[in-house]
Amino acid sequence: MPAPSAPVSFSMHGIAVSGGIAIGRAHLVSNALLEVAHYQLPEHLLRLEIARYEQAISTVRRDLQTIKQQLPAGAPAELDAFVATHLMILGDKHLSEEPKHIILREQCNAEWAVKLQMEDLVEQFEQIEDEYLRERKQDVVQVVERIIKALLGHPSQVAVREQESDIILVAHDLSPADAIQFKHHQFAAFITDVGGVTSHTAILARSLNIPSIVAMQRARDLIRDDELIIVDGNQGVVIVNPDKDTLGEYRLKQEQWELEQQKLKRIRLNKAVTLDGTAIELHANIEVPEDVVKAKAAGATGIGLYRTEFLFMNRREMPDEEEQFIAYRKVAEAMKGLPVTIRTLDLGADKQMNPDTARSCTNPALGLRAIRLCLADPPIFHAQLRALLRASHYGNIKILVPMLSTLSELRQTKLMLERAKLSLRKQQIPFDEDIKLGGMIEVPAAALTAEAFAQQLDFLSIGTNDLIQYSLAIDRTDDSVSHLYNPLHPAVLQLVEMTIRAGEKLGKPVSVCGEMAGDPRLTKLLLGLGLRQFSMHSAQLLAVKRRILQTDVPRLGVLARKILNSGDSDKIEPLLDKLNLQ
Amino acid sequence: MPAPSAPVSFSMHGIAVSGGIAIGRAHLVSNALLEVAHYQLPEHLLRLEIARYEQAISTVRRDLQTIKQQLPAGAPAELDAFVATHLMILGDKHLSEEPKHIILREQCNAEWAVKLQMEDLVEQFEQIEDEYLRERKQDVVQVVERIIKALLGHPSQVAVREQESDIILVAHDLSPADAIQFKHHQFAAFITDVGGVTSHTAILARSLNIPSIVAMQRARDLIRDDELIIVDGNQGVVIVNPDKDTLGEYRLKQEQWELEQQKLKRIRLNKAVTLDGTAIELHANIEVPEDVVKAKAAGATGIGLYRTEFLFMNRREMPDEEEQFIAYRKVAEAMKGLPVTIRTLDLGADKQMNPDTARSCTNPALGLRAIRLCLADPPIFHAQLRALLRASHYGNIKILVPMLSTLSELRQTKLMLERAKLSLRKQQIPFDEDIKLGGMIEVPAAALTAEAFAQQLDFLSIGTNDLIQYSLAIDRTDDSVSHLYNPLHPAVLQLVEMTIRAGEKLGKPVSVCGEMAGDPRLTKLLLGLGLRQFSMHSAQLLAVKRRILQTDVPRLGVLARKILNSGDSDKIEPLLDKLNLQ
Repeated sequence: MPAPSAPVSFSMHGIAVSGGIAIGRAHLVSNALLEVAHYQLPEHLLRLEIARYEQAISTVRRDLQTIKQQLPAGAPAELDAFVATHLMILGDKHLSEEPKHIILREQCNAEWAVKLQMEDLVEQFEQIEDEYLRERKQDVVQVVERIIKALLGHPSQVAVREQESDIILVAHDLSPADAIQFKHHQFAAFITDVGGVTSHTAILARSLNIPSIVAMQRARDLIRDDELIIVDGNQGVVIVNPDKDTLGEYRLKQEQWELEQQKLKRIRLNKAVTLDGTAIELHANIEVPEDVVKAKAAGATGIGLYRTEFLFMNRREMPDEEEQFIAYRKVAEAMKGLPVTIRTLDLGADKQMNPDTARSCTNPALGLRAIRLCLADPPIFHAQLRALLRASHYGNIKILVPMLSTLSELRQTKLMLERAKLSLRKQQIPFDEDIKLGGMIEVPAAALTAEAFAQQLDFLSIGTNDLIQYSLAIDRTDDSVSHLYNPLHPAVLQLVEMTIRAGEKLGKPVSVCGEMAGDPRLTKLLLGLGLRQFSMHSAQLLAVKRRILQTDVPRLGVLARKILNSGDSDKIEPLLDKLNLQ
Repeated sequence: MPAPSAPVSFSMHGIAVSGGIAIGRAHLVSNALLEVAHYQLPEHLLRLEIARYEQAISTVRRDLQTIKQQLPAGAPAELDAFVATHLMILGDKHLSEEPKHIILREQCNAEWAVKLQMEDLVEQFEQIEDEYLRERKQDVVQVVERIIKALLGHPSQVAVREQESDIILVAHDLSPADAIQFKHHQFAAFITDVGGVTSHTAILARSLNIPSIVAMQRARDLIRDDELIIVDGNQGVVIVNPDKDTLGEYRLKQEQWELEQQKLKRIRLNKAVTLDGTAIELHANIEVPEDVVKAKAAGATGIGLYRTEFLFMNRREMPDEEEQFIAYRKVAEAMKGLPVTIRTLDLGADKQMNPDTARSCTNPALGLRAIRLCLADPPIFHAQLRALLRASHYGNIKILVPMLSTLSELRQTKLMLERAKLSLRKQQIPFDEDIKLGGMIEVPAAALTAEAFAQQLDFLSIGTNDLIQYSLAIDRTDDSVSHLYNPLHPAVLQLVEMTIRAGEKLGKPVSVCGEMAGDPRLTKLLLGLGLRQFSMHSAQLLAVKRRILQTDVPRLGVLARKILNSGDSDKIEPLLDKLNLQ
């Protein structure tokens, strides 16, 4: 056994959410929430405690405003949006008022009260089906963390040794505001105990282009300040106190990766055309209008999926038609005539943005969500359709309808769209009379009847994440079964191929906008199945483009068909490796 | 407006759970739970309140034991099992002990304490994904209702006017014990405010062969004692205070229905053969060994689906291998060599029978259930496999594995089965060395790769309920989307047909054991798609058999294919009507 002073080398695994390799020194970020004490207060001190709480809220508000003002000009657009969201959460009565009632009711200290309130809010968030929205609970946690630090008199700024570069932040979770404060340091990587592919840490790391691994579970317990660590953001591996050989090996890998990234940048302006001359569309998925900058920087020739849920999140009132119109128009104008595919509201079963009104339901993924919710709530849908139509006057907007399962839903949607058009015509508000309407194919039944949908729509977009989830009956955010989630299940490939074939037959474009589109390992397979349009996160675009540039489509057919007809997912991996070598 | 004294005629709708038409007088069953008061008790009275609670528990136990002993010899076997279950629930510490702690903690009356405890238990049950198990919460509610009646000094026996026949019970919910007490009265029908297809009321009504409608929502509020009501258990309609014409019309319908039932009984012993001589297997679905009696009475030529979950329900300890063996052997022996298909444990994600250990999970239907759970818990699975194998020595048992989605699960299952066989061989315990292994096709991915599964299995069984749920991404127990649940969605029909075709190609029998199999309206369609084996609730068997006797299979092909290839579910209904006239 090594002596206590000798550094023990060990490795940990997590979810890789941003690629690249970093080697640096650990810097542990404290987690105020874990240190909250609980004590009872005599009645006459409760008013003072409330004043103390109000003071903390003011401190946090001032800090956040300062951070927002000091944002460097070149900072990723997400940062601004995230800090604004935190200010909104802070101002909400759930955090600004409710804990004061708890102090009175429970006769307890302010830290405890706000922690109780947070747990209650988090529980409500956990009922939310949509993975992305569910993870927004972390915003609440992060704001509360900040309040507690203010209550405890902790400095709002985490002290990082100046001058030092290559610092790897090890945190329970990283708040966007933290990240902004750290902005003038040169961080090498982020690793966190919690989080998922769509957590803030992940989104930020990708936008900062640094490796990141989340869901490490016990990183903060096991790693000590200043320990040397390697973060392999491609494989999801962290090596703590590596030995010399390992270190050497990873330094080499790191160099190769960076060289690779440099090479990729060179093909930014290349047309995405295969060796045999097949032209491929590479579009970007975005969440906020500001993402357009990254999309264009990566050479996207359009927006394949603009998720409008972001506008509806973390707020108590629906964004009105005007606010939506401004956001959609902004994207349409920024893309200067390139296609901008905007998906109508894809909120889940039991939430109308507001956890207060959340209805409990046993299986939200199989419940009232997306188009089902929109059709059940015509005023909300009408406002969004009007906003989309109005914005269509300022660019090349297409409307994309999520979660269709039957043609009758599509018929109702078309009626709603006609109604929205009629109301605009009456008011003489201009819009694109030829606006294209597409449907997401993400329910197995829709893929199986894709021809019928293709007949009634202008284009199709395959949402592979949900399609896999329903086809395999696997919730991939459920740890106990996530190992069964498999994009390479032959059934999934068949449904994707059926949809592509239906589009071909009826001359309607088909794109894939789920995660499969952004995985370069699957690019040749999708090309072999006939896909000609991909939409993905901007960060993935160049790697996929390179695969495309190296592909000779006619050569893929035989193997792609063999993979498609294999009934056994275990046999597909070796076939895929073979295909990728072609 | 009619004068207050004139009976107002109106109709109500609910879920029809047992067929037939009844005309009779309403008898409202009181609902003690709705009348529970809440009051605080001074500390010195709490001990007395606890004694009062213990007294009530004893009274209920005595009542239930009396009911059990007085069960008439010919009573349906379910009744005995249900009362035993209620005794078990009563004896459980959650009801026998926990409310006493609540009395002390909350300083409240016993009725309130047990109601609080019940609400807590019910909430835990509602987390359960499996529809059947989830509804077992009604058992808890019914036992608590009985305790509250005892606390309030209500008579345990509901007073029904003697002599009178044709009484229609109108209840918030009906407990099995209630139904047994009522056994010597001649009930015409049951209608209840709550419940579903698999609630006790439904199961009992079907076993008593009387019409029943559940989920009427406000029947008890709107119907008054002694009002004349018509219950149409075929359509799910209740007409209160019908006018003369309506009454006449329904008397005629009633006669026709009864004539129909008499006619159906005559084909009980007929072989299920179509006009063109195609032999069809008609099997029964059962839940407890005692169901075999009904299955044989209906002329079933085998058990197509024995749901073993019943053995695992409402109890704190797993049934051991021996207890399972006895149950399986009982069924195997009773069927005298006819096939008995036993499904391995199909418990859901977040329950191991015991709500205490329930893990919360966002989408239990997409989580750790059925074979996934069994493979994750080898000792439980091993015990069940050994029990099944041992019982196979005493009859014609086949093993059916639920929820398969990939071949690797099947491979693991086969390894487990080999291991169980090996352990029995070592102990020289006899079993059927040729025991057949089948798989449920109920996940869309499994239907799409049915050929691969058929290669590795001896038979397939299509579970249409889940298959529809996943294909359409609809939880049919979720009111907000249940209208979208549609067995006639062309995608569902395609998956069913794919599976049948895969079985044909590889010479492996395929049956349908979901609700589609028991719906006579779908019999011809399923025959047209190639199905030759149906398994359903015994009560539905003869009506399906009659359809079969009237069918000329070769004539179905063209229309069945037309239905299959229609992409639009709305167009299928008229085609189906046409098919059913052939």
